[in-house]
Amino acid sequence: MSRPVTLFTGQWADLPIEELASRCASWGFDGLELACWGDHFEVDRALAEPAYVHGLRELLEGHELSSWAVGSHLVGQAVCDPIDYRHREVLPPEVWGDGDPEGVRTRSAERMKDTARAAAALGVETVTGFTGSSIWHMLYSFPPNDWDAVERGYEDFAERWAPIVDVFEAEGVRFALEVHPTEIAYDFVTTRRALAAIDRREGFGINLDPSHFAHQFLDAAAFAEEFADRIYHVHVKDSRRRLDGRRSILGSHLDFGDSRRGWDFVSPGHGDVDFEDFFRALNRIGYTGPLSIEWEDTGMDREWGARDALAFVRRTDFEPSQVAFDAAF
Amino acid sequence: MSRPVTLFTGQWADLPIEELASRCASWGFDGLELACWGDHFEVDRALAEPAYVHGLRELLEGHELSSWAVGSHLVGQAVCDPIDYRHREVLPPEVWGDGDPEGVRTRSAERMKDTARAAAALGVETVTGFTGSSIWHMLYSFPPNDWDAVERGYEDFAERWAPIVDVFEAEGVRFALEVHPTEIAYDFVTTRRALAAIDRREGFGINLDPSHFAHQFLDAAAFAEEFADRIYHVHVKDSRRRLDGRRSILGSHLDFGDSRRGWDFVSPGHGDVDFEDFFRALNRIGYTGPLSIEWEDTGMDREWGARDALAFVRRTDFEPSQVAFDAAF
Amino acid sequence: MSRPVTLFTGQWADLPIEELASRCASWGFDGLELACWGDHFEVDRALAEPAYVHGLRELLEGHELSSWAVGSHLVGQAVCDPIDYRHREVLPPEVWGDGDPEGVRTRSAERMKDTARAAAALGVETVTGFTGSSIWHMLYSFPPNDWDAVERGYEDFAERWAPIVDVFEAEGVRFALEVHPTEIAYDFVTTRRALAAIDRREGFGINLDPSHFAHQFLDAAAFAEEFADRIYHVHVKDSRRRLDGRRSILGSHLDFGDSRRGWDFVSPGHGDVDFEDFFRALNRIGYTGPLSIEWEDTGMDREWGARDALAFVRRTDFEPSQVAFDAAF
Amino acid sequence: MSRPVTLFTGQWADLPIEELASRCASWGFDGLELACWGDHFEVDRALAEPAYVHGLRELLEGHELSSWAVGSHLVGQAVCDPIDYRHREVLPPEVWGDGDPEGVRTRSAERMKDTARAAAALGVETVTGFTGSSIWHMLYSFPPNDWDAVERGYEDFAERWAPIVDVFEAEGVRFALEVHPTEIAYDFVTTRRALAAIDRREGFGINLDPSHFAHQFLDAAAFAEEFADRIYHVHVKDSRRRLDGRRSILGSHLDFGDSRRGWDFVSPGHGDVDFEDFFRALNRIGYTGPLSIEWEDTGMDREWGARDALAFVRRTDFEPSQVAFDAAF
Amino acid sequence: MSRPVTLFTGQWADLPIEELASRCASWGFDGLELACWGDHFEVDRALAEPAYVHGLRELLEGHELSSWAVGSHLVGQAVCDPIDYRHREVLPPEVWGDGDPEGVRTRSAERMKDTARAAAALGVETVTGFTGSSIWHMLYSFPPNDWDAVERGYEDFAERWAPIVDVFEAEGVRFALEVHPTEIAYDFVTTRRALAAIDRREGFGINLDPSHFAHQFLDAAAFAEEFADRIYHVHVKDSRRRLDGRRSILGSHLDFGDSRRGWDFVSPGHGDVDFEDFFRALNRIGYTGPLSIEWEDTGMDREWGARDALAFVRRTDFEPSQVAFDAAF
Amino acid sequence: MSRPVTLFTGQWADLPIEELASRCASWGFDGLELACWGDHFEVDRALAEPAYVHGLRELLEGHELSSWAVGSHLVGQAVCDPIDYRHREVLPPEVWGDGDPEGVRTRSAERMKDTARAAAALGVETVTGFTGSSIWHMLYSFPPNDWDAVERGYEDFAERWAPIVDVFEAEGVRFALEVHPTEIAYDFVTTRRALAAIDRREGFGINLDPSHFAHQFLDAAAFAEEFADRIYHVHVKDSRRRLDGRRSILGSHLDFGDSRRGWDFVSPGHGDVDFEDFFRALNRIGYTGPLSIEWEDTGMDREWGARDALAFVRRTDFEPSQVAFDAAF
Repeated sequence: MSRPVTLFTGQWADLPIEELASRCASWGFDGLELACWGDHFEVDRALAEPAYVHGLRELLEGHELSSWAVGSHLVGQAVCDPIDYRHREVLPPEVWGDGDPEGVRTRSAERMKDTARAAAALGVETVTGFTGSSIWHMLYSFPPNDWDAVERGYEDFAERWAPIVDVFEAEGVRFALEVHPTEIAYDFVTTRRALAAIDRREGFGINLDPSHFAHQFLDAAAFAEEFADRIYHVHVKDSRRRLDGRRSILGSHLDFGDSRRGWDFVSPGHGDVDFEDFFRALNRIGYTGPLSIEWEDTGMDREWGARDALAFVRRTDFEPSQVAFDAAF
Repeated sequence: MSRPVTLFTGQWADLPIEELASRCASWGFDGLELACWGDHFEVDRALAEPAYVHGLRELLEGHELSSWAVGSHLVGQAVCDPIDYRHREVLPPEVWGDGDPEGVRTRSAERMKDTARAAAALGVETVTGFTGSSIWHMLYSFPPNDWDAVERGYEDFAERWAPIVDVFEAEGVRFALEVHPTEIAYDFVTTRRALAAIDRREGFGINLDPSHFAHQFLDAAAFAEEFADRIYHVHVKDSRRRLDGRRSILGSHLDFGDSRRGWDFVSPGHGDVDFEDFFRALNRIGYTGPLSIEWEDTGMDREWGARDALAFVRRTDFEPSQVAFDAAF
Repeated sequence: MSRPVTLFTGQWADLPIEELASRCASWGFDGLELACWGDHFEVDRALAEPAYVHGLRELLEGHELSSWAVGSHLVGQAVCDPIDYRHREVLPPEVWGDGDPEGVRTRSAERMKDTARAAAALGVETVTGFTGSSIWHMLYSFPPNDWDAVERGYEDFAERWAPIVDVFEAEGVRFALEVHPTEIAYDFVTTRRALAAIDRREGFGINLDPSHFAHQFLDAAAFAEEFADRIYHVHVKDSRRRLDGRRSILGSHLDFGDSRRGWDFVSPGHGDVDFEDFFRALNRIGYTGPLSIEWEDTGMDREWGARDALAFVRRTDFEPSQVAFDAAF
Repeated sequence: MSRPVTLFTGQWADLPIEELASRCASWGFDGLELACWGDHFEVDRALAEPAYVHGLRELLEGHELSSWAVGSHLVGQAVCDPIDYRHREVLPPEVWGDGDPEGVRTRSAERMKDTARAAAALGVETVTGFTGSSIWHMLYSFPPNDWDAVERGYEDFAERWAPIVDVFEAEGVRFALEVHPTEIAYDFVTTRRALAAIDRREGFGINLDPSHFAHQFLDAAAFAEEFADRIYHVHVKDSRRRLDGRRSILGSHLDFGDSRRGWDFVSPGHGDVDFEDFFRALNRIGYTGPLSIEWEDTGMDREWGARDALAFVRRTDFEPSQVAFDAAF
Repeated sequence: MSRPVTLFTGQWADLPIEELASRCASWGFDGLELACWGDHFEVDRALAEPAYVHGLRELLEGHELSSWAVGSHLVGQAVCDPIDYRHREVLPPEVWGDGDPEGVRTRSAERMKDTARAAAALGVETVTGFTGSSIWHMLYSFPPNDWDAVERGYEDFAERWAPIVDVFEAEGVRFALEVHPTEIAYDFVTTRRALAAIDRREGFGINLDPSHFAHQFLDAAAFAEEFADRIYHVHVKDSRRRLDGRRSILGSHLDFGDSRRGWDFVSPGHGDVDFEDFFRALNRIGYTGPLSIEWEDTGMDREWGARDALAFVRRTDFEPSQVAFDAAF
Repeated sequence: MSRPVTLFTGQWADLPIEELASRCASWGFDGLELACWGDHFEVDRALAEPAYVHGLRELLEGHELSSWAVGSHLVGQAVCDPIDYRHREVLPPEVWGDGDPEGVRTRSAERMKDTARAAAALGVETVTGFTGSSIWHMLYSFPPNDWDAVERGYEDFAERWAPIVDVFEAEGVRFALEVHPTEIAYDFVTTRRALAAIDRREGFGINLDPSHFAHQFLDAAAFAEEFADRIYHVHVKDSRRRLDGRRSILGSHLDFGDSRRGWDFVSPGHGDVDFEDFFRALNRIGYTGPLSIEWEDTGMDREWGARDALAFVRRTDFEPSQVAFDAAF
């Protein structure tokens, strides 16, 4: 059988999980990657109320849906980030607290440990998410960066995440960083560095989302092969370059969906990601986990798109070969 | 006659101006775009010591060199920037002062006014440079930006630069922002916004350097045509994309010269800038000012390169047509 | 709901409208863009026989088909053209008359006014069609053109069409020129000029058919955005470049379908038009009118193709987003 | 009606023909191109046992399958090849005999004549296959080739195949060489030479398989047009270039399926073959024979792929036009 | 020795031949392709005044210049063209006469015969030029062309030019049509047709100018090889495509030099012509005649350009190999 | 100073070394890479006659020429190759002997050892050349290869070359295999395998010639970086792809120089090799040895070309930077 197809619920947090599960089931999804916000997966209740987790499992099973991962992008982001008003908008109030940056980072780290525990309680072995980064803003800098400061960014990441990974490993859960601009790792070079900084511990791997590679001109299939043993989860999402000599690849400080941007996120199959090549690479490295659609396209109706994306994955994610050929002619 | 060719002295500040002027003359340059650092053009002395400016002019004339512009990138950068340790490395001690951010910004603004006055004293009508930006670090942000905050960045720029432009206009000097990532304007969209924010005042224009366009996939010739009336100065500098599916266009938090970067600066004519098209656009818009070589290439000997660049411009910057053709067949 | 999909009946004039309507309904079209030739939409009867229009509407409604536009390409072409034997083949005899060029042009202009009246009688608000051009044949000229003569071509167009547009506006109907080589407007530059010549009157707009853009290397989506307020109707048609160093983009004086041509019309989705990008642009400009398939492909069975084209549009013209996203990651 | 779609059974020889026929029928194929190995089409039994052919025909008809061709690649290969251990693996023991090269070649030639007779007995008019080549290994040679020796390769081919073609023509059967690297003809130049060497006899033509053209950067549609009168059979198979600066187009002495190769075979529609252009060319040259899927993709499940390929051909091989258009606009 | 380099004088007719010859000699040209207008080569005087031709030869020899061809584009154009006011501007008054179209065509044909005679008198064996075309304006037509009318265009050409070619052949001079849009032949297809129409007579060949091929996406080197025996003269001229999605390849009814055009003529080496490939093809076909620079670039100073072009040809037109290699490694 | 530029004398063996040295000196070369054939470098005399080596050194010094390498391609090729008539043409008679394959291979291996000794006698530390390959002819094979046999080819190479490398290392000389189709290593994959087979011994490295990479679509600069510690010598040679859909990248069994080939060798700077990128890579890996022009271009005069190539290298091989930059803007 081919890989299961799930929906990442993060962009649907306006819908109660009951409603969303019902719709996803009717559209034909195999499961959900539950976001740790809205009422989709509530970490505190999962730890505090045994019935909560049981009820959530029953809800999913009632719709014949499974879950292989939960997504904790918002809290994870705050672990390493310089903190400002943007984080207040996305963090739970008790994590934000008084907004003192180091306090926010510390509480976010604690919440990530709890997320590992909650995931274990739910019976899910993977937590996807972000790490934040103390150095992302040094991407292109003038006056020039102090390059030692960049090095310290990787160390800061390792120091803050190592204790979190301790808990993950103790719980038998793995953290899967979505390699992504704004994070400590967003391409080949920075992923090599980040994995080295954390000593390539098994509790820390990658949620591979090819939409963040296309606009960087990176080959997501080659990435899958280079980091094969750390690909713990896969997002199906797409982006499209719209370069015409007047639109910058850097995005022009414009929000997604503005047609003057040089690239944008689009529904899977509508952009530049070569999913044929990507899925073949996943076959070669033996990835058998879910393909989780993270649906985002400012130009398309969300429900039309979710179904279109599911159909796209079903017809594109072919089954790998079980046999070797003797002859080719 | 074709346009004069100058050298921007900013990357040669390790050499005394006497030494550098002598070399540039021997290589065949027509003039210098003097950097306001090293001993190349000292703003405070220009205002305080009448003999200083006179001596500098004599030095240049003695080598049959002219000057059409001075470059004030380092101080200009601090006018709008969030200030940190990076600025201390590049600012004069009296501008840095105690390093309090708002104080640094205020003193930098005052120094820019002095730079206009000093340029006038030297008889130069253009000051090239940077503006800094309070929002550059919001280029790609997660959690998502508050887009009103981006708007406020343009307003902040206008508020801080309007009084500076007042002095420029009073002195009959024009500021030419080098459109460049890390600045308030770095592409078509942001230049439109920045010029609008400053009410398209005549005292504020553009130093057009195509090397910052090539890696953004922008058409520098089209830019020259769109902003024709604000092209006050031109840099000749080049960059080269090295995309192979493993190198990111975003630069990987690596210093220039690292072969794992997706693009890098190179000596003019060795990169992706289409100078043929660019110079033709300059002809069409009637730009008759200098072509100022800003030489930067981590892989080439500096002196070999300066001469190579000069020869490149001389053979590429052909004279525009003086007549219209009657027939074409 | 997505946009309705219609069939332009011009290439099916060999079939009686009853027969064609029946087939289109069975294939699943939402309506017809009726050609003003064959028996599809008879302008003179529409004005003379009240029952005619009523009967036509009943016929369409009986098949659950609507009509948003009628197409008057043949007569419109003769309004500005230098007239020769080619026009005799496509004009009604009473419009051709004695074939005297100015007489033909005048009678064609009158017939266009009648077409506006007839469209109004049918309850249709858009007439698609051609304008002809007195200067098209000066496209590439040796001996060189007198460029004033080119200017006069735009004036001639404005003089001949202004009185027609008067009638259109009086009837509450809009003329939509199919921007197309052989017409007064066929690309960005000539459309700007033609719209300016006719004072951008609201009664005169564009029928945007991207098949005429692909072989000119033009971006139909950018065109939609530039002329957003004048996009009154949209054709879905495709063309394909077949350049191999031996086939000219100019067409070699060969009829469509000859494999030695450098480009040819093909069924939608089989060519170089980027419909994904095009439909997104239509969404952005808020175009909610019909997508009218003008089916033409010399290498494909017509009925196979009409159904294939309809299926293509149904799966490609996704619904636009109704909401803005808060987050993108 | 469009062309029939068959499956070439060569890659399925591990399945008994009864089993394979049953599956293909259930998947919707129109027929089989029977391989002359496994138990699919046994040449010796076809000549010796009248009941065999009758039974095979009944088997196919029972599944509503037809057969337009049989495939004799393995034996054909040995007619011109320098013989070594590789041939022993693929030849029937009685053809291999003692393995003496000239003996193997002679017995292979005789078996090809029998194949023509057996095909006639089955009522099939085309035998697809290989010729072998005495000069393939001289493709890129150092020390340099003696170019007369290359010429002699074409002569050797003609001498060995002319007597075989005699039998084919006598039986009313045509041999269709699959133009393919490793054979006497693999591109435009070598096909011109090989057809000239055999005097363009009608009994010797081409089995056109575009998968062997894509990785050579050849235009299979142009090939179909140049050799229109010799296109006797068509394979539907695909290949995909994977060039990234580190993978050689020459294949690196690696087996198919190794991701370090610069190209590989893939299921139809998943590679670089432009089937739209290819099928249009087949329409233009009037090819009405079968499209025979030769399914080979080391990265895809065989049964999933066969159905995917059939669906691909059904939706891509549109019906050609029966009429000429009068107008195009 | 490499091929001689000449200047076509047509774009310099504002200069007296004495002045132009002097300049060309000083720039280093080997000779002139004299235009039959201005005072460069006066056909009537050449026939009437023996001393004229002698004087012209002495003038050239005095500057060590040779002449291999004269250019008769203006009169040749009128032989087949529909005649209008454009021709009056470029024809000698006695050829224009009363401007009656057929009279103009007849007198132009007679003048072409005289041009052959005059060329013979000058000792020049090639006349370059245009033919005009009665069908050029039917390039892209709506209403659709009557394709028989296109055929008649080739016949008209043959009828009008056959008597001219009679005189050329009698005089031992060859006419070389510059294959060019607006002429009877402008690409591969139309050249095949035109040569066939004139029975491939030896007196009628081609002046191959690659600038007219680049914007049609045609391969001038392949053209040289296909029509090798009819390449009688070669122009060195360049053109540059400027396609950006908003500029049409068709030229937008704009004069050369307008930056909104999709292509334009440029000085040799500044455009899209692959001269490396082109000169290699000329070597392969054994063309040893002149490379005649036809200089046209609305954006460059004419004299700067002529010297730049000459230097470009000198460094690019390498000498062909005199020997075959034995080994390649 | 930049790297020295030498000429590889292999393609000039028709000229006596005295004559060739004189010409190269006059053209401005810094030295010669002497071929071990013709009278350029005679291995047997170098070992037998002490005066020979002394005289050769004096000859070179008399012309101010140096030598950093000798080239032994012809004999080296025979060490691993299946031997046939092609080798007889290029081997010394005493090495060919009776032509028995194993005898030829053994004698060639012995001669390679002598070449190391002779090079040492001449004071040259590098011998460039070929290895031959017992498996090259299995590049693309049908019937399919036995992949164990391919493995055995690498082992055969290692067994035959290890004793030769013993002598090289004893003599303080290094063998530099020209990575090249027809050799044991011709791309990234096969070079990795070959170096592994020979245990990455220091006595065995690479002569990097980028002309063999361009037509394989390989990145020679990336190759230099991957195998940095084994780049012992560099050839400057170029190749050019001429793909047009009808010419195969495989070469069509046509000799070099045939215009129907899909690629060909050309003089440096006239082809697809990106020398800018290549020389920068050589700078990064610290290669300071000679750039040795191996001149081969069937379409260009040899002497014109040698000078053109030398000028090309002189202007392209810029000096690397001696300093790091502090700032980049």
